[in-house]
Amino acid sequence: MALSGGAADRGSHSMDKSITLPPDEIFRNLENAKRFAIDIVAKVRSFDHSAKETDGDPLYEISVQEEITARLHFIKFENAYIETCLDFIKDHLVNTETKVIKATVDKEDEMTCLIKGCNFVLKNIPHEAFVYAKHADSEFRFQNTHPDIFPYLLINIGSGVSIVKVEAEDKFERIGGSSIGGGTFWGLGALLTKTKRFDELLQLASKGQHTNVDMLVKDIYGGAYGSLGLTGDLIASSFGKSATTDKEFSKEDMAKSLLHMISNDIGQLACLYAKLHNLTRVYFGGFFIRGHPVTMHTITYSINFFTKGEVQALFLRHEGYLGAIGAFLKGAEEDNPNQYSWEENYAGSSGLMSASPELNPVQRARSGTFDMLEMDRLDRQLVNLPLLQDPTSYIPDTVDLTEDALAREYWLYCFEDALDGVVKRAIASQKDQPEAVERAEKFRQKYRHKVQTLRHQPFAYGSLTVRSLLDTREHCLNEFNFPDPYSKIKQKENDMALKYYLKFGFEQAKQQLQERPWLVDAYNQWIERLKLSSVLTGNSGPALNDVTNSELQILTERIAAMDPVIHAALKEDRLALVQNGSSSPCLDLSRLDKVLATVVRERGTDLVIIEGMGRAIHTNYYAMLSCESLKLAVIKNSWLAERLGGKIFSVVFKYEVPSKAQGQH
Amino acid sequence: MALSGGAADRGSHSMDKSITLPPDEIFRNLENAKRFAIDIVAKVRSFDHSAKETDGDPLYEISVQEEITARLHFIKFENAYIETCLDFIKDHLVNTETKVIKATVDKEDEMTCLIKGCNFVLKNIPHEAFVYAKHADSEFRFQNTHPDIFPYLLINIGSGVSIVKVEAEDKFERIGGSSIGGGTFWGLGALLTKTKRFDELLQLASKGQHTNVDMLVKDIYGGAYGSLGLTGDLIASSFGKSATTDKEFSKEDMAKSLLHMISNDIGQLACLYAKLHNLTRVYFGGFFIRGHPVTMHTITYSINFFTKGEVQALFLRHEGYLGAIGAFLKGAEEDNPNQYSWEENYAGSSGLMSASPELNPVQRARSGTFDMLEMDRLDRQLVNLPLLQDPTSYIPDTVDLTEDALAREYWLYCFEDALDGVVKRAIASQKDQPEAVERAEKFRQKYRHKVQTLRHQPFAYGSLTVRSLLDTREHCLNEFNFPDPYSKIKQKENDMALKYYLKFGFEQAKQQLQERPWLVDAYNQWIERLKLSSVLTGNSGPALNDVTNSELQILTERIAAMDPVIHAALKEDRLALVQNGSSSPCLDLSRLDKVLATVVRERGTDLVIIEGMGRAIHTNYYAMLSCESLKLAVIKNSWLAERLGGKIFSVVFKYEVPSKAQGQH
Repeated sequence: MALSGGAADRGSHSMDKSITLPPDEIFRNLENAKRFAIDIVAKVRSFDHSAKETDGDPLYEISVQEEITARLHFIKFENAYIETCLDFIKDHLVNTETKVIKATVDKEDEMTCLIKGCNFVLKNIPHEAFVYAKHADSEFRFQNTHPDIFPYLLINIGSGVSIVKVEAEDKFERIGGSSIGGGTFWGLGALLTKTKRFDELLQLASKGQHTNVDMLVKDIYGGAYGSLGLTGDLIASSFGKSATTDKEFSKEDMAKSLLHMISNDIGQLACLYAKLHNLTRVYFGGFFIRGHPVTMHTITYSINFFTKGEVQALFLRHEGYLGAIGAFLKGAEEDNPNQYSWEENYAGSSGLMSASPELNPVQRARSGTFDMLEMDRLDRQLVNLPLLQDPTSYIPDTVDLTEDALAREYWLYCFEDALDGVVKRAIASQKDQPEAVERAEKFRQKYRHKVQTLRHQPFAYGSLTVRSLLDTREHCLNEFNFPDPYSKIKQKENDMALKYYLKFGFEQAKQQLQERPWLVDAYNQWIERLKLSSVLTGNSGPALNDVTNSELQILTERIAAMDPVIHAALKEDRLALVQNGSSSPCLDLSRLDKVLATVVRERGTDLVIIEGMGRAIHTNYYAMLSCESLKLAVIKNSWLAERLGGKIFSVVFKYEVPSKAQGQH
Repeated sequence: MALSGGAADRGSHSMDKSITLPPDEIFRNLENAKRFAIDIVAKVRSFDHSAKETDGDPLYEISVQEEITARLHFIKFENAYIETCLDFIKDHLVNTETKVIKATVDKEDEMTCLIKGCNFVLKNIPHEAFVYAKHADSEFRFQNTHPDIFPYLLINIGSGVSIVKVEAEDKFERIGGSSIGGGTFWGLGALLTKTKRFDELLQLASKGQHTNVDMLVKDIYGGAYGSLGLTGDLIASSFGKSATTDKEFSKEDMAKSLLHMISNDIGQLACLYAKLHNLTRVYFGGFFIRGHPVTMHTITYSINFFTKGEVQALFLRHEGYLGAIGAFLKGAEEDNPNQYSWEENYAGSSGLMSASPELNPVQRARSGTFDMLEMDRLDRQLVNLPLLQDPTSYIPDTVDLTEDALAREYWLYCFEDALDGVVKRAIASQKDQPEAVERAEKFRQKYRHKVQTLRHQPFAYGSLTVRSLLDTREHCLNEFNFPDPYSKIKQKENDMALKYYLKFGFEQAKQQLQERPWLVDAYNQWIERLKLSSVLTGNSGPALNDVTNSELQILTERIAAMDPVIHAALKEDRLALVQNGSSSPCLDLSRLDKVLATVVRERGTDLVIIEGMGRAIHTNYYAMLSCESLKLAVIKNSWLAERLGGKIFSVVFKYEVPSKAQGQH
C-alpha cells in the first residue's frame, strides 16, 4: 500500500523534517501532509549602491524565508499497519481542506495510474532503471534514461501478470498477460510448504535446489540434447521428479522450483511479446519483483536465456510507488504536473533494497516495512543541453562508484570525514538560532546513516557518484533547514572580491596559478579562438559555496558599475546571465533549465566552458559536446589528483573540438 | 510405449488375423510380426478365348493366392506390461532373421522420429487432424488434409513442452519450449493431491471447480475490468486464492486449477510462436494431450482466447504413434517408405478415444491399455486428380455422419442390418473351406463391434461417412481372409453379360430406366457435347461387386473381339484402361493412382464421368472439377432417395460445367 500526500509543514510547528521510524512516528508525519509544502529557503537581495559606495555595508542582504514548494511524499507499508494508518487519517486528516489523500484508486484507473507513474519516474529520475546481475561485480547496472522513454513494454507481475505496451504519455495497451504470477508463487507455495508469508517463501526459495524437484534434460537424456541445442542442465519439466518419485521434497527445493518455473515462464512470455511488437526496453514490476534479488535474478536469467542477450530485463528503483504516483498525477491533472520537472529527494527517500530479505536483515525489520519516496517539484522544466553530441549516451558522472570499489571506499570515507566540518559550518551559519545545534546533530546522524547505508548498498539511489554524495548532503542539510550554510561566507568573500576587483589584476591572478605546462594544458589553442558574446550561468539554488544565479546577478551589476568592458557587454546584450536549474555543486547537462537551453540554441553557442571540480571533473569530464568546450578545474583533493596522475592543486584545462562527423550528429 | 512390427503371417498358421485382447493374446500376435506381411488376395486370370467360344467355360479364372504386402502394426500399452512384452520378444523374436523390432530410439533421433511420424500421418491419413469442441454438436471437427502439409507448428507436450517449426520433410527447428508441461501437471498434481496416477489426476481435474482456487478478475475488481478488455471470469491469478485463504482446497479443485494453469500457458506460448513465425497450422501432441478430452478442451479454449479465433488448435488422431512411426521410417529408409502411399487399416486400428477416461470407462480398462494402429502400404502412390478445381477444399464425402445425427443413425442401422447378408455372402464365396464359417462369424463380431463403437464414438476414425463404413467392412472382411466375396458372382454376371452383349442392345437397356424427366436430368446437354477418346478406370482392388481393373481388362478384350467399334478404339488408343488405385466402393479423388493422374493430364481430359451411388452420391456429389463432369447413379436405397426428394431407383444424372473463372483456378 502506498499513500501519497504532501511533505510536512515544518515552517509553523517544527524545523525538523526528518521522518523517524517506527510506525507511530511515520504516521505523525502525515499530520502535516498536504500536496504543497512550505520550505525554508535562503534568498539574497541587493542593496541600493547606486548613490555612493559605503565601505561598511555588506554587498547584499541574505534573508531566510518560507516558500511554498511542491513535494510528493510516498510511504509504503505492510497491510498489518493499515488500521494504524486509517485511524490516523480519520483523527487528523479528514476534512482538512488543503490536504489531499489518495489511498484508493478506481478500478478502471489502476493500470492508467501504473503507466502514468512509470512514465513519471522514467522521465524524472535519472538511473531509475537498472539491469540486475547477481554474480557481477556490481549487482545493479543502472541505465541512463533515454531522452525519449517511449515505446516500452511493462511487465507487471502482481497476483497475475499484465503485459502492457506503452507508446506515448496517454497511449498504452494491455497486449498480453498470464495467470501464472506472484499469486501463483504465493498460493502454490503456501499449499506446498505450508508457509503463508510471501517473503518467507522467497527466503525458502533462495536456499533451495530446484534440481532435486525438476526434471532436467540430463535426467532424461543422460546429458545435453545436442541436436536440439538443449544443455543438460536445462529444466525439461518443472516438478517433473515429483511425478514419479515417492520421496519427500524439502520446502526449500519446492519453493525454488516454483520460483524458477514462474520466472522462466514470465521471461519467455515477455520476450515473445517484445519480439512481436519490436520493443527492446522491457521493464518488470509488481510485488513479485519489488526489489527481491531472487526474483530479479530468475527473471533476468530467463530473459537472457530466451533472447540470447538481445533484450535486457530492466527493473525500476521506485517500482513500488508507480501506482501511487500515477494516482497522484491523475488527481492533480488540473495542476498539469507533467509540465514540471521533478527530482528525487535523497534525504526523504529510503532507497533501493532497504526491503531486501538478503541484505541487512536487521534493518529490514525496521525500514523494510516502511519505504519512503520524496519527489521535489522543481520550479522550472529541465531539458538536455542542446549541444550534447549524443543525448542518449551522455553520462554526467565521470566515475561510477558502484563499479569502482576503491574510489567508492575513498569517497565514502572522505565525505564521512568531512562531516564534522559541515556540521560546524551549518551551526555557524545560524548562530542566532540556538536549536540549530540540535538540528545540525540530526543532520549529522541522518547523513552518516546514509553514507553507511551506501557503503553496504552503493546502489541504493541508483549509480553512486561524487555528485550523488554531494546532492544527498545538500538534501539532508535542507531537510534540517540549513538551506545555505555558506551564504554568509560567500557574502563576505564576494564583498571582498569586489573591493579588490580593480586592485587585483588579471595578470596578478595568473601568477597564482601552477607553473605551466599544466596537468592538462590546451591554454594556447583556447586563446587562439577567443571571441566575445557570452552566457554566464549560475546555479538556481545554493550548493556549498558555489555562486548562485541571484548572487551572480548582483555581482555582475556591481562590476559593471566599475568596469566599462563588462558594462558595455551587459548593455549590448553580449553578456547574458541565465540560471542553470541546478542546486548541486555538480552539473547534469541533461537536466538544465529550459530557458538556458533556449538561449543556447538562439545564440548559436559555439563554446561551452565548464568550470570547477564538481562540474568539470566529477561530472562532464568525458561529456562530448557538438561544439568546442573547455573543462577547467584545480584539483583540490590529493587522492583524486594522484589518481589523475598529478598533485594537489594541479590545473586541468581540457579543450575539445568535436570531429566534423560527430558535430553534425 | 509403442512397438512397430509387421502384421501376422496368417497364411501358414491360421487364417485369423484378428487381435484379441487381453495382453497374452496381443503378444502372441507379435510372434508372426515382420515388416512385410503375407496377405491372401483374390486374382483373376483370363483363359485363352481366341480360338473358339466355349459356352460352358467361365469368362476368367479366379485364384486366391498369397501376396507379400507391407503393413505397419503399432501396439501401444502401459509400462506395466513392459515385462510381459520383453519376455515375449526374448522368447520368440530375437534372432529371427526377417523380423524388425524397433522398441527404443536413440536420444538424438527422438525429435526427428516425432516429426517424421507427424509428416507421415498428415500425408497418409485423411482426417488425421481435428479441432476439438467440447460443447459443439460434434465434439471433433476433422480437417481435410491440405495437399501441402508444410509449414506447421508442432507443440509436443510431454514432461515438458517442445515447440517445433516444421518446414519440409527433413527441415525442422525447435523454436521454443517450456518446462511447464505434462510432468508439471503430474508432479505438482501428485504433491497437491497425493494422487500419483496421471489419468486419475485428469479425472480429478474433470470434476473440479477451478474458481474455488484461482483468483478471478471479478474477485479483484468485483466484475470485469472493462477498460483493459478483461472479463470478470478470466483467471487473474492461478492458485491466487490459496495465497491468503486458510481453508482446505479439494483435490478436484486444485487439479482443475493446475490443468487450466498449464493449458492456458502452453496455449499462449503456442499462439505467440505461431504469430512470430506466421504459421496458422498448429498441432498439439504428447502424453498431456493424447486424446484426453479435458486437456484438449483447455488447450483449445486457451488458443481461441489468445488468438481470438485466428489460429485453431489441431490435434492428431494418431498422435501417440508418431515416435514409433518415425522410428520405423528412419529404420526403413533404405526402402524409401515415403515413395509409397499408405492407408489406415480400420480393421486393425483401435480408433480414437478408446482410451478416453470419460467415455466408456468399462471399455477403457480393456482397450485403453492397448491401442493399435495398422497402416497398409499401397502398391502405388496416390495423388490428387489434376482436374480438381480446388484440391485444398475438396471433400470426397457428401455427408459427414459425425455432424448429421439422423443420417448417422440410419446408416449405422443399415450397415448392421445388412451384416447377416454379408456374412452369408462371405461363407458362400468360400464354400470349399469349412473353417470359413468360423472366420465369417469372427468377421461379424468384429464389424458389429466397430459399428457399435462408432455409434458411441462416431469420430473414432475421423469423419464418419458411408465411405468409411464401407471401407471398414472391406478391411474387416480382408482381416478374416475374405478378400473378394463377390468374385464368383461377378464372374458369373460378367460371363452372362458378355453372352448377351450382342443380343441385349443399348436401346433396350435404355427402356429399363425410369421414365424421363429423371430426378436430376441433364441428359440432353450431355448428348450435345459427346465426343470420343476415353480413359476407362476401375478399382485396383476388389470392393463389393464393383468391377476391378483386372476384370475390366479381360472384359474389354472380349468385347473388342466381338465389337468393331471397341476394337478400333482400343487399337487406336482412343480407349485406355487405367486402374484408379482404390479398393473401395467409393472414390476419393484426392487419392488416385499417380499413373491415372498422369494419363488424365497428358490426354487433356475435358470430361469426367463418375458412376454409381458410392462414387457419385456418397462421395463426390459436390466435388467441383475444373472440366465438365457427369455424376450418374441410380439411388438403390429408399431412405437416401427420399432424403434427396425422390423415390427408390430414382436416376441421378448431374452435368456440371465449371464457370470460366473457376476453371482457370
